[in-house]
Amino acid sequence: ARTGDPEVVYGEGKTPAQIVSALRALHAAHPDRAVLATRLAPAALARLAEELPAAWLDEAGRLAILGTPPAPVGTVAVVGAGTADLPVLREVAATVGVFGAGCDEVVDVGVAGLHRLLAQRDRIAGADAVVAVAGMEAALPSVLGGLIGVPLIAVPTSVGYGWHLNGLTAWLAMLNSCAPGVLTVNVDNGFSAGVAAARIARRTARP
Amino acid sequence: ARTGDPEVVYGEGKTPAQIVSALRALHAAHPDRAVLATRLAPAALARLAEELPAAWLDEAGRLAILGTPPAPVGTVAVVGAGTADLPVLREVAATVGVFGAGCDEVVDVGVAGLHRLLAQRDRIAGADAVVAVAGMEAALPSVLGGLIGVPLIAVPTSVGYGWHLNGLTAWLAMLNSCAPGVLTVNVDNGFSAGVAAARIARRTARP
Amino acid sequence: ARTGDPEVVYGEGKTPAQIVSALRALHAAHPDRAVLATRLAPAALARLAEELPAAWLDEAGRLAILGTPPAPVGTVAVVGAGTADLPVLREVAATVGVFGAGCDEVVDVGVAGLHRLLAQRDRIAGADAVVAVAGMEAALPSVLGGLIGVPLIAVPTSVGYGWHLNGLTAWLAMLNSCAPGVLTVNVDNGFSAGVAAARIARRTARP
Amino acid sequence: ARTGDPEVVYGEGKTPAQIVSALRALHAAHPDRAVLATRLAPAALARLAEELPAAWLDEAGRLAILGTPPAPVGTVAVVGAGTADLPVLREVAATVGVFGAGCDEVVDVGVAGLHRLLAQRDRIAGADAVVAVAGMEAALPSVLGGLIGVPLIAVPTSVGYGWHLNGLTAWLAMLNSCAPGVLTVNVDNGFSAGVAAARIARRTARP
Amino acid sequence: ARTGDPEVVYGEGKTPAQIVSALRALHAAHPDRAVLATRLAPAALARLAEELPAAWLDEAGRLAILGTPPAPVGTVAVVGAGTADLPVLREVAATVGVFGAGCDEVVDVGVAGLHRLLAQRDRIAGADAVVAVAGMEAALPSVLGGLIGVPLIAVPTSVGYGWHLNGLTAWLAMLNSCAPGVLTVNVDNGFSAGVAAARIARRTARP
Amino acid sequence: ARTGDPEVVYGEGKTPAQIVSALRALHAAHPDRAVLATRLAPAALARLAEELPAAWLDEAGRLAILGTPPAPVGTVAVVGAGTADLPVLREVAATVGVFGAGCDEVVDVGVAGLHRLLAQRDRIAGADAVVAVAGMEAALPSVLGGLIGVPLIAVPTSVGYGWHLNGLTAWLAMLNSCAPGVLTVNVDNGFSAGVAAARIARRTARP
Amino acid sequence: ARTGDPEVVYGEGKTPAQIVSALRALHAAHPDRAVLATRLAPAALARLAEELPAAWLDEAGRLAILGTPPAPVGTVAVVGAGTADLPVLREVAATVGVFGAGCDEVVDVGVAGLHRLLAQRDRIAGADAVVAVAGMEAALPSVLGGLIGVPLIAVPTSVGYGWHLNGLTAWLAMLNSCAPGVLTVNVDNGFSAGVAAARIARRTARP
Amino acid sequence: ARTGDPEVVYGEGKTPAQIVSALRALHAAHPDRAVLATRLAPAALARLAEELPAAWLDEAGRLAILGTPPAPVGTVAVVGAGTADLPVLREVAATVGVFGAGCDEVVDVGVAGLHRLLAQRDRIAGADAVVAVAGMEAALPSVLGGLIGVPLIAVPTSVGYGWHLNGLTAWLAMLNSCAPGVLTVNVDNGFSAGVAAARIARRTARP
Ligand SMILES: Nc1ncnc2c1ncn2[C@@H]1O[C@H](COP(=O)(O)O)[C@@H](O)[C@H]1O
Ligand SMILES: Nc1ncnc2c1ncn2[C@@H]1O[C@H](COP(=O)(O)O)[C@@H](O)[C@H]1O
Ligand SMILES: Nc1ncnc2c1ncn2[C@@H]1O[C@H](COP(=O)(O)O)[C@@H](O)[C@H]1O
Ligand SMILES: Nc1ncnc2c1ncn2[C@@H]1O[C@H](COP(=O)(O)O)[C@@H](O)[C@H]1O
Ligand SMILES: [Mg+2]
Ligand SMILES: [Mg+2]
Ligand SMILES: [Mg+2]
Ligand SMILES: [Mg+2]
Ligand SMILES: [Mg+2]
Ligand SMILES: [Mg+2]
Ligand SMILES: [Mg+2]
Ligand SMILES: [Mg+2]
Repeated sequence: ARTGDPEVVYGEGKTPAQIVSALRALHAAHPDRAVLATRLAPAALARLAEELPAAWLDEAGRLAILGTPPAPVGTVAVVGAGTADLPVLREVAATVGVFGAGCDEVVDVGVAGLHRLLAQRDRIAGADAVVAVAGMEAALPSVLGGLIGVPLIAVPTSVGYGWHLNGLTAWLAMLNSCAPGVLTVNVDNGFSAGVAAARIARRTARP
Repeated sequence: ARTGDPEVVYGEGKTPAQIVSALRALHAAHPDRAVLATRLAPAALARLAEELPAAWLDEAGRLAILGTPPAPVGTVAVVGAGTADLPVLREVAATVGVFGAGCDEVVDVGVAGLHRLLAQRDRIAGADAVVAVAGMEAALPSVLGGLIGVPLIAVPTSVGYGWHLNGLTAWLAMLNSCAPGVLTVNVDNGFSAGVAAARIARRTARP
Repeated sequence: ARTGDPEVVYGEGKTPAQIVSALRALHAAHPDRAVLATRLAPAALARLAEELPAAWLDEAGRLAILGTPPAPVGTVAVVGAGTADLPVLREVAATVGVFGAGCDEVVDVGVAGLHRLLAQRDRIAGADAVVAVAGMEAALPSVLGGLIGVPLIAVPTSVGYGWHLNGLTAWLAMLNSCAPGVLTVNVDNGFSAGVAAARIARRTARP
Repeated sequence: ARTGDPEVVYGEGKTPAQIVSALRALHAAHPDRAVLATRLAPAALARLAEELPAAWLDEAGRLAILGTPPAPVGTVAVVGAGTADLPVLREVAATVGVFGAGCDEVVDVGVAGLHRLLAQRDRIAGADAVVAVAGMEAALPSVLGGLIGVPLIAVPTSVGYGWHLNGLTAWLAMLNSCAPGVLTVNVDNGFSAGVAAARIARRTARP
Repeated sequence: ARTGDPEVVYGEGKTPAQIVSALRALHAAHPDRAVLATRLAPAALARLAEELPAAWLDEAGRLAILGTPPAPVGTVAVVGAGTADLPVLREVAATVGVFGAGCDEVVDVGVAGLHRLLAQRDRIAGADAVVAVAGMEAALPSVLGGLIGVPLIAVPTSVGYGWHLNGLTAWLAMLNSCAPGVLTVNVDNGFSAGVAAARIARRTARP
Repeated sequence: ARTGDPEVVYGEGKTPAQIVSALRALHAAHPDRAVLATRLAPAALARLAEELPAAWLDEAGRLAILGTPPAPVGTVAVVGAGTADLPVLREVAATVGVFGAGCDEVVDVGVAGLHRLLAQRDRIAGADAVVAVAGMEAALPSVLGGLIGVPLIAVPTSVGYGWHLNGLTAWLAMLNSCAPGVLTVNVDNGFSAGVAAARIARRTARP
Repeated sequence: ARTGDPEVVYGEGKTPAQIVSALRALHAAHPDRAVLATRLAPAALARLAEELPAAWLDEAGRLAILGTPPAPVGTVAVVGAGTADLPVLREVAATVGVFGAGCDEVVDVGVAGLHRLLAQRDRIAGADAVVAVAGMEAALPSVLGGLIGVPLIAVPTSVGYGWHLNGLTAWLAMLNSCAPGVLTVNVDNGFSAGVAAARIARRTARP
Repeated sequence: ARTGDPEVVYGEGKTPAQIVSALRALHAAHPDRAVLATRLAPAALARLAEELPAAWLDEAGRLAILGTPPAPVGTVAVVGAGTADLPVLREVAATVGVFGAGCDEVVDVGVAGLHRLLAQRDRIAGADAVVAVAGMEAALPSVLGGLIGVPLIAVPTSVGYGWHLNGLTAWLAMLNSCAPGVLTVNVDNGFSAGVAAARIARRTARP
């Protein structure tokens, strides 16, 4: 990674052994920074629990962090539509932390239960950047975009019943939001959204 | 059309002269029923104004009705997201009327201005059937589906800025709505939605 | 679910243990209503048979119902093209029942054997709402739409030989039906069709 | 064209002058055979009427034939769903004639009016080959395939309201017909269907 | 199947036990006709070898035939591009036989080795109908269409290296053949091609 | 627009007269804010030059601004790949200004002339937010993402020779950037990118 | 353009006046090199004939060349399937010449008339690089690839009847050629193919 | 293979035993040439190590070579963007060697680390042909195309996070490169790129 940015291990397609040794080597090379590992299968998480007990593990998020993240500067609100969106929401949250911003998780506020979302409006509006995570028809960012004026990143997820085209529907919906200023990343790409949100929040909060 | 159903002229690809004579012929054959003409270009509307002064014309809806629609039985609420969705909303409304139900038009209640939609909730919930007309990311039916329990038909429109794929985005969004029970028709097909909604409302209201 | 609507467990991606405990918890919270579980794998059905003997199971439909559905109001005819469409047809039927309407199943009346369909015409035309379930080229709803005037919902299924694009062909066919007023839901989404059909039938039958 | 086959001029993208001179040249080279010109714009037809009065013109079919077709051997039934399918139906019929078979046109027998189709069943079943021309959801060939055992070619047309994807829907439907043995050609390609049908009918009828 | 046509069992998605009992039942009901089973997995073939020793099995074609096919009337040439196309070619051949025509298999004559194809030209041209089976870019039917005037059906296969889109490339190529009169069926659908070819050949050969 | 945000007129599909009167009305309602009009055809620009001489016009950007934008807070670098991307780049720039941030335009630094881009690196890295505008294969944001750590928004344009799918290629490329943290908007949607970038820059620069 | 490469003006979307002045300016800046202009509409060609009489014009190829191309080094055979492919074939040929190689045009050798292609085999095989230009199902490069071992570039054209998807069919066919080593460019991109072929031929022929 | 070209075994879908015997047979038939086997699963590589110890194996490239490749004529630079692209890069390299040219592998020079690529510029520019292997947004060939004038083949790989459409994104990007003269092959088709590059390099280097 570019000097200064944390190191990250992408777990998909790697064996548990490869992941353990990658984390170890990067941690040894950068003992002062946190190293993040994403997309970890259960077997990889189990192996990490055994061989790297110092690592912080998040099973729902399929994540591990080794080393201490920087002190948080600014706050990112990460807002999720449904429980099935949780793994991606957690990937955003962990990335935000490792890249140096604070994170406030607001879960299960999909538009089918509008009152739950409206009840959290002020909390979300107070953040320095907002990441909205939603699948299916992904109406959440449009509704949010009409309620707040904070920089807003939308992450489409591959969550849905039947023919949702692996998240294409959510992705198209976010790009066609009737609320101006909605920014997007690739389907399920919580990592990229987290990197961008942390950069915005950290700068925003500069004294 | 099946005996009993009104006759309809689809104006696209027909000359003004063809439309006038089709309306005349159908009206002569069924003097007791209303005949509907849809998708009328400005030139066709102008010609109708001149040659069939008895016809009722709707420029925004690109429509004409010749003859008297039946007395309305039951009510359909037709709900539209934005002003650009108006032509399709009007096609729904006219069809509903000609097919024998009453119609309540609720316009400009897209989700980016949530308070306007919430203010109309009870009015919409009181109808016998609801038709939601929306383009772009088409979040409206999902929000509506969480607020009311009335039979709900969603009409995707080909309205949008940039790459909305001629309404495919709205269509996919409606089919992937997180609210169960949302029914759809083809893009911009206000006619088919109106036929279905009128059938539901008319039966619903049977004594 | 919105107050009054039955609770539903979507079985896909859940372990048998999760499904059992979800059903138990929802039943305990709403002892007076039926709870529906859909998309159950054989292992989940086996576990339910053992641990929740009070549940009603439908193997062909991959379904379970715990508790007593409401007394049926109105009738939905659920019409299926082929035997491969049966699981979706059953999902419609179970949902209709749990959501409070009666259900009449008319199976194996695809258009390649037209006489079998024509023989059931009056039975179908007598229902308060019709759900047509078909895969492949999905000609059934168009033929039905020319024979009856009852509100008609078409459910495309992902059934076919070779390149049917996971039901896209059936879906497109239904949206382009030459019969006006055909309403659709997502591919294989018998649940959503059932919710909508029950709402229509229940209202229709109000005294 | 391969020796023995008639010469054909494809009119799309050619000027009226180019079409006239192509027909003249081919007719001079093969005075004993008919020359066919397809996809003629109104301007081209007008020019032909003036400059080649010996040519037979079909405005609905956008066609011209110069010279005498061979005596017909065998019969092709060309069956059309709606009036909008007529231009393609006529392209099939003219091609069949020029390629040496007889042609029986059966129009306006789409599946939404099933009784009209059933009334023509025996007439269609008596042909040596059948070509079914249909747009929208293209249910016609599936219904026909369940009624007759004659070789059956289905031509999808780009006819439809709204999002029919320029005939892709009809095309996919025909390729996924539940009736076995349905053969297809490209969208609107009446010419290719006519060539194939004439070959089948001519051989079939060999003594 | 329609009276007179042979019965067929589609093996995909059925257990070996289901296939055995389906064949047995159909054979008992129609002892005078052959019953065909297609798309048989190795386990199904093994079970058939054991339990129905009277059945004729084709491993390469994943097929079984129980009972005696009718005496062949007319001949179909089935022409294949590469060895990977063999399973589909065999499905065509078996279907042709069971539906009452004779079959001549011409294998491994893809266009990359043009001399091998040219060497078989007269043999192919002598048939009453030709079925060309090809994957990848599917150039074979176009080359054949320029060499022979016999009715020609092209079957696209899902054979290819890398991004061939499960046969879509071959399918599109066949529908856009520069040779007129090429007819197609769905990807890998040797069965439907065989039914159609047998019908053509049987009529062709009528005295 | 939400209170506080500038009003914007989307010119596509509006007549010159409609645009003039919309600008006039919005300016009268909000005399203290700038009103922006985008996607103006030459005829609309000409009419504005005549009837609203106080408006600032940008022909290359197809834009007009009526009234005084706020004093700029923070800086957005808008970076363009080629001259054909200029209209979209200008839409970004004008929107940024009207929404309250300063703008630095860096044009014609596509990756095929890498030295020109490298020469501007420090200038770009000094901004509070960066918007990269590129069509064709859209390599620019990936190269930029490897050079700078500033929040980065990529706008795909529908610019290209031949089959670029109206900007889909650029869009897919941006969503699959190997540089983490790249945010995107819809094809050609300079307006939405400008709104988001201004929000980021304005917050960033808060004292 | 990179130093040494000829300058090129892409005519699409430019006015005749812009094209004339671009050619003039580039010619003045590089009097020793040829300047190429492609994709010229008839109006642009007419204007060039008048204002730049020294330019060489190719109407079929929609091209102009101002100044003297370099002495040709090596030979490129440009092979075209049909007459409709001619404009692209000419774009290849002109580009090859301006980029410094010799060009041998072999036209109208599509696979439907195989003998014409076989008759040119040795002529084609003698070139230093081959460019095959074909539309529709684009079988030509596969057949060529089986006949010669020379570096082979295939250019798909947007030529076809009906649903060829603007050249996508030809493009997919070329990428799935059963002949190894076939290289492709974008649909109709004769320019890019010509640049590449000239580079190969010039190097090949180095003494 | 055409006389003179090496024999190749495509390992996908073949058992280890089939691969061993195919290599043995081809080597026996052509003892003077090298035989290449591609797309070998680990089990096939293990079997080859045991049964054909004379074969050269490349695990990363999933390859085997039996027999001695020809003495190399000319040089191909094979340039790879990331480590995940290595298997395809190795397939290119092995094919180049077996088809008679020398190969220089330049790995891990993706555009996100521009300095590493720039450091290798002269080495790459000195080759007779260049093959660029890249996935995700595939910016590498465009950047290379602006730096060198050597014949350039781009191989898209199916490498990416999330929605990259199995390499379609890389493929579209390469076909839309802003650098003229970029040639492509199918996704992951290192074999075809290697065949073409070797042909170019061998000719180039002829004395
Ligand atoms: N706006 C519309 N959208 C879709 N279908 C329509 C529309 N208007 C009319 N139709 C259908 O078109 C038929 C009349 O078509 P035509 O005979 O061509 O005028 C009617 O019976 C309807 O089924
Ligand atoms: N160039 C643009 N691209 C996308 N959306 C735009 C653009 N310009 C304006 N808009 C949106 O269009 C709305 C105004 O639309 P209208 O009322 O139809 O003029 C604005 O509030 C913006 O949300
Ligand atoms: N026919 C063509 N197809 C694709 N690209 C072309 C073509 N002609 C020119 N170009 C490219 O367009 C550039 C010139 O574009 P422009 O400056 O807009 O005239 C040239 O340098 C080529 O890279
Ligand atoms: N990795 C590869 N990618 C694409 N084509 C290949 C590859 N390896 C071999 N081939 C082709 O496959 C042919 C051998 O196929 P097979 O006879 O099935 O082993 C060779 O002659 C090549 O044309
Ligand atoms: Mg959601
Ligand atoms: Mg909307
Ligand atoms: Mg069906
Ligand atoms: Mg039809
Ligand atoms: Mg092939
Ligand atoms: Mg660019
Ligand atoms: Mg061609
Ligand atoms: Mg890459």
